[in-house]
Amino acid sequence: MPVSVLHGAGDVRLEERPVPAPGAGEVLVEVAAVGVCGSDVHYYREGRIGDYVVEAPLVLGHEASGAVVALGAGVDAGRLGQRVALEPGVPDGTCAQCRAGRYNLCPAVRFFATPPVDGAFARYVVLLADFAHPVPDSLSDEEAALVEPLAVGVWANQRAGVQPGDRVLVTGAGPVGLLAMQVALTRGASSVTVSDVSPQRLAAATRLGATRVVDSREAPDLAAVVEADVLLECSGAQQAVSAGITALAPAGRVVLVGMAGSATGELPVQLIQTRELTLTGTFRYAGSYPAAIALAASGRVDLASLVTGRYSLADAEQALTAAVRDPATIKPVVVPGL
Amino acid sequence: MPVSVLHGAGDVRLEERPVPAPGAGEVLVEVAAVGVCGSDVHYYREGRIGDYVVEAPLVLGHEASGAVVALGAGVDAGRLGQRVALEPGVPDGTCAQCRAGRYNLCPAVRFFATPPVDGAFARYVVLLADFAHPVPDSLSDEEAALVEPLAVGVWANQRAGVQPGDRVLVTGAGPVGLLAMQVALTRGASSVTVSDVSPQRLAAATRLGATRVVDSREAPDLAAVVEADVLLECSGAQQAVSAGITALAPAGRVVLVGMAGSATGELPVQLIQTRELTLTGTFRYAGSYPAAIALAASGRVDLASLVTGRYSLADAEQALTAAVRDPATIKPVVVPGL
Amino acid sequence: MPVSVLHGAGDVRLEERPVPAPGAGEVLVEVAAVGVCGSDVHYYREGRIGDYVVEAPLVLGHEASGAVVALGAGVDAGRLGQRVALEPGVPDGTCAQCRAGRYNLCPAVRFFATPPVDGAFARYVVLLADFAHPVPDSLSDEEAALVEPLAVGVWANQRAGVQPGDRVLVTGAGPVGLLAMQVALTRGASSVTVSDVSPQRLAAATRLGATRVVDSREAPDLAAVVEADVLLECSGAQQAVSAGITALAPAGRVVLVGMAGSATGELPVQLIQTRELTLTGTFRYAGSYPAAIALAASGRVDLASLVTGRYSLADAEQALTAAVRDPATIKPVVVPGL
Amino acid sequence: MPVSVLHGAGDVRLEERPVPAPGAGEVLVEVAAVGVCGSDVHYYREGRIGDYVVEAPLVLGHEASGAVVALGAGVDAGRLGQRVALEPGVPDGTCAQCRAGRYNLCPAVRFFATPPVDGAFARYVVLLADFAHPVPDSLSDEEAALVEPLAVGVWANQRAGVQPGDRVLVTGAGPVGLLAMQVALTRGASSVTVSDVSPQRLAAATRLGATRVVDSREAPDLAAVVEADVLLECSGAQQAVSAGITALAPAGRVVLVGMAGSATGELPVQLIQTRELTLTGTFRYAGSYPAAIALAASGRVDLASLVTGRYSLADAEQALTAAVRDPATIKPVVVPGL
Repeated sequence: MPVSVLHGAGDVRLEERPVPAPGAGEVLVEVAAVGVCGSDVHYYREGRIGDYVVEAPLVLGHEASGAVVALGAGVDAGRLGQRVALEPGVPDGTCAQCRAGRYNLCPAVRFFATPPVDGAFARYVVLLADFAHPVPDSLSDEEAALVEPLAVGVWANQRAGVQPGDRVLVTGAGPVGLLAMQVALTRGASSVTVSDVSPQRLAAATRLGATRVVDSREAPDLAAVVEADVLLECSGAQQAVSAGITALAPAGRVVLVGMAGSATGELPVQLIQTRELTLTGTFRYAGSYPAAIALAASGRVDLASLVTGRYSLADAEQALTAAVRDPATIKPVVVPGL
Repeated sequence: MPVSVLHGAGDVRLEERPVPAPGAGEVLVEVAAVGVCGSDVHYYREGRIGDYVVEAPLVLGHEASGAVVALGAGVDAGRLGQRVALEPGVPDGTCAQCRAGRYNLCPAVRFFATPPVDGAFARYVVLLADFAHPVPDSLSDEEAALVEPLAVGVWANQRAGVQPGDRVLVTGAGPVGLLAMQVALTRGASSVTVSDVSPQRLAAATRLGATRVVDSREAPDLAAVVEADVLLECSGAQQAVSAGITALAPAGRVVLVGMAGSATGELPVQLIQTRELTLTGTFRYAGSYPAAIALAASGRVDLASLVTGRYSLADAEQALTAAVRDPATIKPVVVPGL
Repeated sequence: MPVSVLHGAGDVRLEERPVPAPGAGEVLVEVAAVGVCGSDVHYYREGRIGDYVVEAPLVLGHEASGAVVALGAGVDAGRLGQRVALEPGVPDGTCAQCRAGRYNLCPAVRFFATPPVDGAFARYVVLLADFAHPVPDSLSDEEAALVEPLAVGVWANQRAGVQPGDRVLVTGAGPVGLLAMQVALTRGASSVTVSDVSPQRLAAATRLGATRVVDSREAPDLAAVVEADVLLECSGAQQAVSAGITALAPAGRVVLVGMAGSATGELPVQLIQTRELTLTGTFRYAGSYPAAIALAASGRVDLASLVTGRYSLADAEQALTAAVRDPATIKPVVVPGL
Repeated sequence: MPVSVLHGAGDVRLEERPVPAPGAGEVLVEVAAVGVCGSDVHYYREGRIGDYVVEAPLVLGHEASGAVVALGAGVDAGRLGQRVALEPGVPDGTCAQCRAGRYNLCPAVRFFATPPVDGAFARYVVLLADFAHPVPDSLSDEEAALVEPLAVGVWANQRAGVQPGDRVLVTGAGPVGLLAMQVALTRGASSVTVSDVSPQRLAAATRLGATRVVDSREAPDLAAVVEADVLLECSGAQQAVSAGITALAPAGRVVLVGMAGSATGELPVQLIQTRELTLTGTFRYAGSYPAAIALAASGRVDLASLVTGRYSLADAEQALTAAVRDPATIKPVVVPGL
């Protein structure tokens, strides 16, 4: 089968590999669509993300959908043929973190496209059956692939405990910010303000339902223009973190979703104390796929309009460089069947 | 000013009383609209609800809106003229329940239309300013009045912790059920099934967004037709409680909203144990007005279509008997200015 | 190896079986001590518990400790020789309940001494290594075995959210009640009242730190003698459930730990509503072993004094009938090495 | 009556003032003991704390106990003569924060010894009756006064959600750290490690039950010597915050209790993300007095041994400077009746 393989920074090759065989409890999935994530782009450019280094050839792609075409031992026969969204991280299921329901923190998790585990830029992949989530026909293949970043937004909102009446501030209007924002609305947020430095991204936020957008180049002091109960920080930018926290009302909640660019950051600790703010971060998600699928399938979250380009496996490198070539890029998708 | 006064079961009279004067921290509100609640009807018919007995003349009505027309000492001048939804229960603010944020359980609470506290079937009422919640112009007077039963639905959903992906079952499609159902959708419920014995009420549920309705006379065994994560029990009927609980998945949550008809009820306790269900009840609401106003003002909850009749103060008795005369009655509203 | 096998109601036989071999990820444990649980006694007497029927020979015993004597593939070599408390239920680790951290509700869980899964009345057992919890030398073998019922008490307290200042009522002073009571104290409960019908059990409660004991034959109306914030119902008796709930203050919490004798029970539903009580049940426990081990190892929970008799495998039937012969029996223990 | 008044930095004078009269709902309390807090010392030295400036004469002292000697209108007669611990901050009871149960964040709170509200370095004070908490005779006057800093520790532990099995790290062994540490043990913490730079304080921690103490001058890298689930940061020192957070296991919780010395601080944000740590701060406490009183009255928290000196009102300045003169000072107490 054809596979797109990263051999090092800037070195992506189309290769042939044997179709993998599903083991016990696993399914073989014919891949239908794979979204390109910022982490894929980062591996492509740098050959690493922090301590994760591409030391052997690596298949990228972890936002994937497809159809079940073969079953491993013990898998229910009814699963054959099902269209599925692939949850790309499979934990060991028995460690202390897993037993506590925090399987995203399992130290033995095997996650697509994270060295040394291959991802989904391939014609076929195998996955534990319980992590291949059935999707209804109301979701297209591309939308089913984007359930993965939507799950990030679902988890961020869950950890923030967004509920009706909350005023939500989302800093950063990339794909995750645009999804976190939509999820906040599905949870009853009374207002969702989105800040970014890109007019194109802010326009997308407005189109997707933001009650207000703020160009943070013009209004860097967010506290001067908005008061919020929840900050969903999706930019990873230090100044957005600080400005966003300062805009929170007493008892406000902060979730750091966008990966910080450096190990440490300057936070307004006295405000955290005097206003009793609560701050946490998210690492992927746990148990978020069913809710993400339900929200997308019912039309309450728009995934389709995030797709800004489709590429064959042979053109995977084009997908990885799309954002550089076109600033209006939101989410390129690799379609192995093209 | 004209006031509609209940003197005993079946004895409502229009009377003149002096306009009350707002005390320190209070506002005088010209009443614009007052919804009729089942409890008003019950006092009218029976002269009592359980231990609460109408021993002295009582003004009914606790679902009210209006405009601030005078201020007591210490109230911000900016409040004059504001359109407001009236939260009808004022707690003492300092007892142990209040200090714990459970002011709805304050033993000293003074609640409209609950003996011996008069309600809002009157031209004017006074209320502590902090409990007269400003509403935007996108809410009509009648909608502002119905913020009260909506707050019941908001609180029920909050205590159930409804969130995206939850499958919700609402038993009972009276006004509170129809509102609880809508709130569940605003919190991201993936499905909301509504059961009732009245085809007219089920039709209303369908119109307001229920993903499925069940006529419980035809399908008394709810577990046979639906599986849910959350039960919002809004009928108070013993068989609905039992049937609804039996339909819950493991770790399901139950909120008893509809007042039970008798002190005790037969519950499936072994299921509560083996499925680790969690069950609670609601008594009014605490802190639910801001969210209720936000949901209604943004159009996510439809209040206007619940109104099935308008009555002057002089015709308050007609409002109290509307449901008997017309089974399609959902929410009669008294409009003192008519 | 010798094994004590239940062939049907009242029919326990000592037999020889081959020593089992640990599979991948599993350990072989030489059993040191096994507590006798009420469920063991029930299987012995009736040959069934509800829908669980002893249709094939069954080894009883699920409260076990021992030492790791052999390792399956992939298990860390350092585990050899460790003294361990055995968590007797192993879930599949990947289903929806497991992924949510509720592995006790896993429909595929394999639990010791629950048909058709054999228990620990044997010289050796195999168990997934992650469920064989290391214990410090400050815990004896018998205490390590009793970590299992202690985990039941830990979980009940966790679900009740017992915290400093709570007034706790424990109904039922059997082994689980005596442990739940002690755990409540370790969480800072300001008072723990224990009710039972047995003076001997109440004496044990007093010895173990209860701040007050109530003979419920003399004071069946618990609300008349105590007000509590939390009810840990450990008797399974219908009247204790009702009386206990009635004794709760507003916002009180109820956990039904003792298995109810019948499918349904009469509960004070109006009180649940007007006081906004929260009620749930427990089914075994999830993630409770580490805390249970820590509490027992530090001496904050007394397990040793619960042991009222020691029996060899050959005398397992004596252990199962001890409570009938001696009403002072709390916890008989089978010691396979005797 | 005699009162100790701060007129500016370093200027404390004993003066005579009229005995205040209790208003409606208030009690007059004869003050028995008042602990000296770091904030009192700070006002004495600097004449201000941040934005709070001593612009008019101010009575210091907010950790107070006493006896009710007169009642305002509407107060239950049974309160006369009661020994009480004084909760020094009275909120308005009706604002949005109060209604949410977060009365410590009430913007209109009136808090003892915070300009312009006078404190308790006086023979008598008035206080709202609901904030004068009765104490049992098992608590001495001095212990009743120290319920206030104990409430800080109770609240910190509650916000951290410390429960059995948690490994707790307390950075800073001043009075609050020594109390937070003890509370953690009463909640079942499996271990409590305390770090500080003072051998005398570490010795106090050991005496009060710390399972381990760390001299952070010798072991600045806390992560190298301890792993914890909860960090109760009681020093306010930037390096303790960073070092403490780094020592946390996945899903760890951080509570910043010690007031930070500067508005912003450098935090390990990537760790917060990849380990999904949760961080919050505390501002005083809400609803913590009853639990604090219960823990102290039952002997589970030792307050008496924190007292390192007793001073008359005339010697209040000596109390305020005790820590400078003697590094072994933990808690000086002013006794107006001396």
